Amino acid sequence: MPSGQTSLQDLQTPALLLDEARMTRNIERLAERAKTLGVTLRPHLKTAKSVEIARRLTGGEARPITVSTLAEAEAFHAAGHTDILYAVGIAPQKLARVQALREQGCDLVVILDSPAQAQAVAEAGVPALIEIDSDGHRGGLLPDDPALVEIGRVLHAGDNLRGVMTHAGESYMVRGNAAHADFAERERSAAVRAADALRDAGLPCPVVSVGSTPTAHAARDLSGVTELRAGVYMFFDLVMAGIDVCGMDDIALTVLTTVIGHQPAKGWVMIDAGWMAMSRDRGTAAQDVDLGYGVVCDAEGRVMRDLIVSTANQEHGIVSLRPGAAGPMPDLPLGTHLRILPNHACATAAQHDRYNVLPANGGPMNTWHRFGGW
Amino acid sequence: MPSGQTSLQDLQTPALLLDEARMTRNIERLAERAKTLGVTLRPHLKTAKSVEIARRLTGGEARPITVSTLAEAEAFHAAGHTDILYAVGIAPQKLARVQALREQGCDLVVILDSPAQAQAVAEAGVPALIEIDSDGHRGGLLPDDPALVEIGRVLHAGDNLRGVMTHAGESYMVRGNAAHADFAERERSAAVRAADALRDAGLPCPVVSVGSTPTAHAARDLSGVTELRAGVYMFFDLVMAGIDVCGMDDIALTVLTTVIGHQPAKGWVMIDAGWMAMSRDRGTAAQDVDLGYGVVCDAEGRVMRDLIVSTANQEHGIVSLRPGAAGPMPDLPLGTHLRILPNHACATAAQHDRYNVLPANGGPMNTWHRFGGW
Repeated sequence: MPSGQTSLQDLQTPALLLDEARMTRNIERLAERAKTLGVTLRPHLKTAKSVEIARRLTGGEARPITVSTLAEAEAFHAAGHTDILYAVGIAPQKLARVQALREQGCDLVVILDSPAQAQAVAEAGVPALIEIDSDGHRGGLLPDDPALVEIGRVLHAGDNLRGVMTHAGESYMVRGNAAHADFAERERSAAVRAADALRDAGLPCPVVSVGSTPTAHAARDLSGVTELRAGVYMFFDLVMAGIDVCGMDDIALTVLTTVIGHQPAKGWVMIDAGWMAMSRDRGTAAQDVDLGYGVVCDAEGRVMRDLIVSTANQEHGIVSLRPGAAGPMPDLPLGTHLRILPNHACATAAQHDRYNVLPANGGPMNTWHRFGGW
Repeated sequence: MPSGQTSLQDLQTPALLLDEARMTRNIERLAERAKTLGVTLRPHLKTAKSVEIARRLTGGEARPITVSTLAEAEAFHAAGHTDILYAVGIAPQKLARVQALREQGCDLVVILDSPAQAQAVAEAGVPALIEIDSDGHRGGLLPDDPALVEIGRVLHAGDNLRGVMTHAGESYMVRGNAAHADFAERERSAAVRAADALRDAGLPCPVVSVGSTPTAHAARDLSGVTELRAGVYMFFDLVMAGIDVCGMDDIALTVLTTVIGHQPAKGWVMIDAGWMAMSRDRGTAAQDVDLGYGVVCDAEGRVMRDLIVSTANQEHGIVSLRPGAAGPMPDLPLGTHLRILPNHACATAAQHDRYNVLPANGGPMNTWHRFGGW
């Protein structure tokens, strides 16, 4: 089993690799944007789930973060983070754990979009943001829904109204900076209209929170917004590359794998990275170029043009040329190490319990723990 | 966080539930078949990855098992299992771990399908089965490939030839007992022909191993076969139900989830089981009835007709009526507990680190640890 400071050659495969230099570049890129746009960045740690990465995202300080589970909130609070947004609609049954963290000094804030939730949250004395629907993607109230002010009043009675938030998940479905900028403006406009509706009713709305990785990189003006959220940006992935938010050479995560067999008549090379190592995510299937279960790179991370993981079983991947691609298949003997770029970093990382970190300075590899669960 | 003997109501969601009575029934069903067919059953533990479940599969004895990773081999050997088949083509870099287990008294056997692998395995003194391709699904040699005898000779020189094995993965793609029986006969015929080819060349072939969950349940005659492998049969899932290997009421795994929101105008109910809890597996998408990310049951496990998880984000599921289904949507207030039947038990279980076990006798729940990794 791999432990700290193993070399790449000695790693047991499949194994998750993190290119620290690329991650640092991605982190700095969005931090710079947030500064230019004049908003606070509240990174979403649902993708990383690592105390080491959280430290690099917040410069070692207890700056704002976003989480998708209470297990994340608990782990990051234990590591010193005190300003946490739990950005999944709250279930009443989860409020006891929220309260426990708040009593330990964690400013944990929840989100909600219904009077029933507001009632439960107000009774528990937990502060909340009201979720706004800016693109029909998932949850949230429309900015002009009368329930918005009703909920605001319920929360404000106990001083638990912190503001509003929205997330344009549909921005993942469109390609290019101009299209993402349109979604960024939809996020901004919906959140600001909701904030204004609350303020017009005499309610406070200190926080106006927006964001997704595509919109965060494309927003041109965030007037009226106070904070920006994004998650997958620290790693990026093929889905983000497919909609032009990044290039393939910005992707910081790969899965190291070994060639374990061949079916030459079919043009297949078998590897030991199946869906258990890559996840079942097929996020590029609906994009302009379907990249199967990931793009193949050599052991140094250089993309091998048109070579993809075309099929995945639990512990087997089948590498072949992309349909329509000109051959020939490269010669990849038994035991060859390859690296696979993932479709969806959140899903692929979730299949692993550690990051094998290739340090920026080229020194020995580090191992960073990654947690899961709820 | 859940611990041993929590009640269903107190579980934090999402959580993986295991119905022990159903599992026991499924285990007994295939054990009975293997007995009737006159073959040894070698259960595949890639789905379960649990020492508690392994004990129930083997009646507490050290009977034969199959694994998909060396991490499984190590964990099950530590729990007393000594007859283990590692059923993924061996990479030379993994032989040191195989040898280490063998030196500890574990009869760990590997599989291979190339002369290069046979050379590496022979040098390491590790016994192997030769993988046979019975359906074009993945790896393996055709029974009449001259490489078969060549590999057999390399292995036999060091007394490392144990036999042949095959797996008809394509049997998952067809529906009904007759179609699965055809694939079972393809497995049997290919494996027996390969064994005969080895024997005709004066080589031993004591083990003739076949199996997949669909073929294991449909095989009518296994003459010449010595052992049968199957994995998902202890739990079953919607993919198996969709090809008539089981009914929905045989599925022993569900994910417990909580209603966290509503979009009534769209007929959506939001739950806290997204793809992180269900996996990204969409195994029913290519079947006659596409069941999205799973079928919704009430908290007692009763199927709610035509209600599915139609969309999944990381920690959100969207429950709605199946396209074409007659309404109306049932009333599912905030905080309601539901249970979701999974598409693919191997993938869904892999998203969790424990089984919350509903015991056959209706007593208090147990928690069984589940491991992952490589």
